[in-house]
Amino acid sequence: MWWPKVQQNPIITLTSDFGLDDPFVGMMKGTIHSISSKVRIVDITHGILAHDVIQAALVIQSSYSHFPKGSIHVVVVDPGVGSARHPLLAITEKGYFVGPDNGVFSAIYKNCDQIEFIKLTTPEYFQHPISQTFHGRDIFGPVAAWLSQGLDPKKLGQFMTKPVKLPLPSPRIIPGTDKVEGTILYSDRFGNILTNIPYTEFKQSFCKRDFRLVINGHLIDKMYPSYTAAKQKEIFAIWGSFGLLEIACYQESAASVLNVKPYDNFEIKINVFEKSK
Amino acid sequence: MWWPKVQQNPIITLTSDFGLDDPFVGMMKGTIHSISSKVRIVDITHGILAHDVIQAALVIQSSYSHFPKGSIHVVVVDPGVGSARHPLLAITEKGYFVGPDNGVFSAIYKNCDQIEFIKLTTPEYFQHPISQTFHGRDIFGPVAAWLSQGLDPKKLGQFMTKPVKLPLPSPRIIPGTDKVEGTILYSDRFGNILTNIPYTEFKQSFCKRDFRLVINGHLIDKMYPSYTAAKQKEIFAIWGSFGLLEIACYQESAASVLNVKPYDNFEIKINVFEKSK
Amino acid sequence: MWWPKVQQNPIITLTSDFGLDDPFVGMMKGTIHSISSKVRIVDITHGILAHDVIQAALVIQSSYSHFPKGSIHVVVVDPGVGSARHPLLAITEKGYFVGPDNGVFSAIYKNCDQIEFIKLTTPEYFQHPISQTFHGRDIFGPVAAWLSQGLDPKKLGQFMTKPVKLPLPSPRIIPGTDKVEGTILYSDRFGNILTNIPYTEFKQSFCKRDFRLVINGHLIDKMYPSYTAAKQKEIFAIWGSFGLLEIACYQESAASVLNVKPYDNFEIKINVFEKSK
Repeated sequence: MWWPKVQQNPIITLTSDFGLDDPFVGMMKGTIHSISSKVRIVDITHGILAHDVIQAALVIQSSYSHFPKGSIHVVVVDPGVGSARHPLLAITEKGYFVGPDNGVFSAIYKNCDQIEFIKLTTPEYFQHPISQTFHGRDIFGPVAAWLSQGLDPKKLGQFMTKPVKLPLPSPRIIPGTDKVEGTILYSDRFGNILTNIPYTEFKQSFCKRDFRLVINGHLIDKMYPSYTAAKQKEIFAIWGSFGLLEIACYQESAASVLNVKPYDNFEIKINVFEKSK
Repeated sequence: MWWPKVQQNPIITLTSDFGLDDPFVGMMKGTIHSISSKVRIVDITHGILAHDVIQAALVIQSSYSHFPKGSIHVVVVDPGVGSARHPLLAITEKGYFVGPDNGVFSAIYKNCDQIEFIKLTTPEYFQHPISQTFHGRDIFGPVAAWLSQGLDPKKLGQFMTKPVKLPLPSPRIIPGTDKVEGTILYSDRFGNILTNIPYTEFKQSFCKRDFRLVINGHLIDKMYPSYTAAKQKEIFAIWGSFGLLEIACYQESAASVLNVKPYDNFEIKINVFEKSK
Repeated sequence: MWWPKVQQNPIITLTSDFGLDDPFVGMMKGTIHSISSKVRIVDITHGILAHDVIQAALVIQSSYSHFPKGSIHVVVVDPGVGSARHPLLAITEKGYFVGPDNGVFSAIYKNCDQIEFIKLTTPEYFQHPISQTFHGRDIFGPVAAWLSQGLDPKKLGQFMTKPVKLPLPSPRIIPGTDKVEGTILYSDRFGNILTNIPYTEFKQSFCKRDFRLVINGHLIDKMYPSYTAAKQKEIFAIWGSFGLLEIACYQESAASVLNVKPYDNFEIKINVFEKSK
């Protein structure tokens, strides 16, 4: 069996839109600790925008590979809780992913070599009574805890195929032009803007003066290797720590200056100087 | 002795109004870890409204039962820190509760079969110097840590009776009518409004079309089993995950739409259709 | 060797300006757990104001002594990430301090008996590829994790001297007067204002009626032993839990009432009644 081995002191990560002011996260952890006494629980973030399944998909994608192989990743951004959408376990060679089958793991699927899906249907591994509004506590947390105890995943339900896949924003080459349409994913606490332009595919195209990017009417044509290479208040592009193109403004919030919001589109013209020869 | 056994890797939960921007919670954890090297610390929430002892009482009540028996629950919402109010340990068959004797455990008392109270008076189990403004770090955290090490609770002080009890908002049948007066407890991150109407006592009275609830002039007479059963922007009642009646608005914040704040009262007319026969 | 012994289940503390809404802290923890399976990670706070190295220096100073000797303290407030500033390990008799060499440990240096500095230059203990924007994840977290595994610190780089020291705000006696100039450090969640006036040096000077402090035109000449000794809305001085003079307002935010911001200065006239004899 190719499934990854669960560690001795297994890690369960939590990602949600619960925030930290309500006791939701604490309750989930209580439920997990009630089942498993040797687990290490790590919060990735509970600050996902309420109901934003796409943001959650992008955050778990950029985070999970920093955890040990065999970790168990629980993601609960679940606007359809209590409806017909079913609870899902996805197993890849890297780890276990537990959450609603609403596309929240869409960005995981394309980056793994092997994958299997189990529809979670065995109520004996849930917490009862199962509420209709908080499956993080009553289903996903308990299932993760049982996995951390070494439970055979096959006992949790039936194999299934075709989980929900969300169309994640991908950069799009505009036919017949030298332009690419990109999408803003979100901005971080510092106001740095994450885009969906990946380093792996686009690094060749971005030389220091070799592109023009327009966001909300602002032209950006500088790329720097670090924040401090920029002048005060200068807006520039940078390859960020998630492997994506970011737009930053030294000592300021680029998101405020450019007045952008998640899922805004923008255009990049690449190799402009070369082309104009 | 009926006191619950403290686990091998005991859990200490923390609930406070400290927020997470200041280093208060970190300091408390440092103090606990300095005494006990095998404890697992779990945050329930540090987002209690500043000085809101009633909210803290309701949050610990709805949360503690999700943790293993024998867990140690520290609650520090303590507007009277440094005054004559004394530090308290309450022991029930479910666990240990450490905090100021200001009523913060009031909602625990009615839900347990057995209970004993110890006034914490043994300074050798406190951290010195004891500040006059931060007993979470200097008294409650250290006491919880010593309990997690298996210290006999009797060494922490003297048995006492009659701890402070706060009048928690309870639903009130309005005499001579078919109406109940309820109270809004608080609203969560999604804008769902928690009321003080418990499922256990009121489930019979709420059929799908069999009640009328008025909040700030808005009539609510729909109850759904899940959020997704409602139409977009529809306001409705639902039995929430804390076992309490909640008022929600699909894809919106009910708290904003209805413009409510904690401890507002409202009226429910029950069995209206039956009665009008 | 006088270096402190790393514990069996070592503690790594984290302090940063990352906030909790982004997955930065989660990623750092994943990287640490990937290297060390026995570590206990404790957040001090991630709510440092963005890029505020001085606030971080003050927070780690007031917090680290509450943790066991031999703990490893990571502080990442790092506006110069990716620039020439190098990564630093400072070792004192109390513990290990890992972060950028930008002065963030300035307040530690004066409070220890022994200290040594190591410039972190051994890439084999970093995570690769090393991003230019997130050394918390790629350098400081991994180095802390290796230390927690018992790695000889000498393997991490070369001894160095003269780390960056920031001028921290110190109280200043105004020559030829009976006045002291103090500085506001920050205000906490409750609106209590922390100043830089330390108890150890100034306790003699503050008797109950024996000082006058003026902040933004407001006169404060009362000192109380606890918050509850004040009248509602009264503004007063109090020795706070960090060993510093605080300005508080009972049941209100002193910071709002006095309209102050970090690093504002103010004047204290001491022993006013004695002097006027």
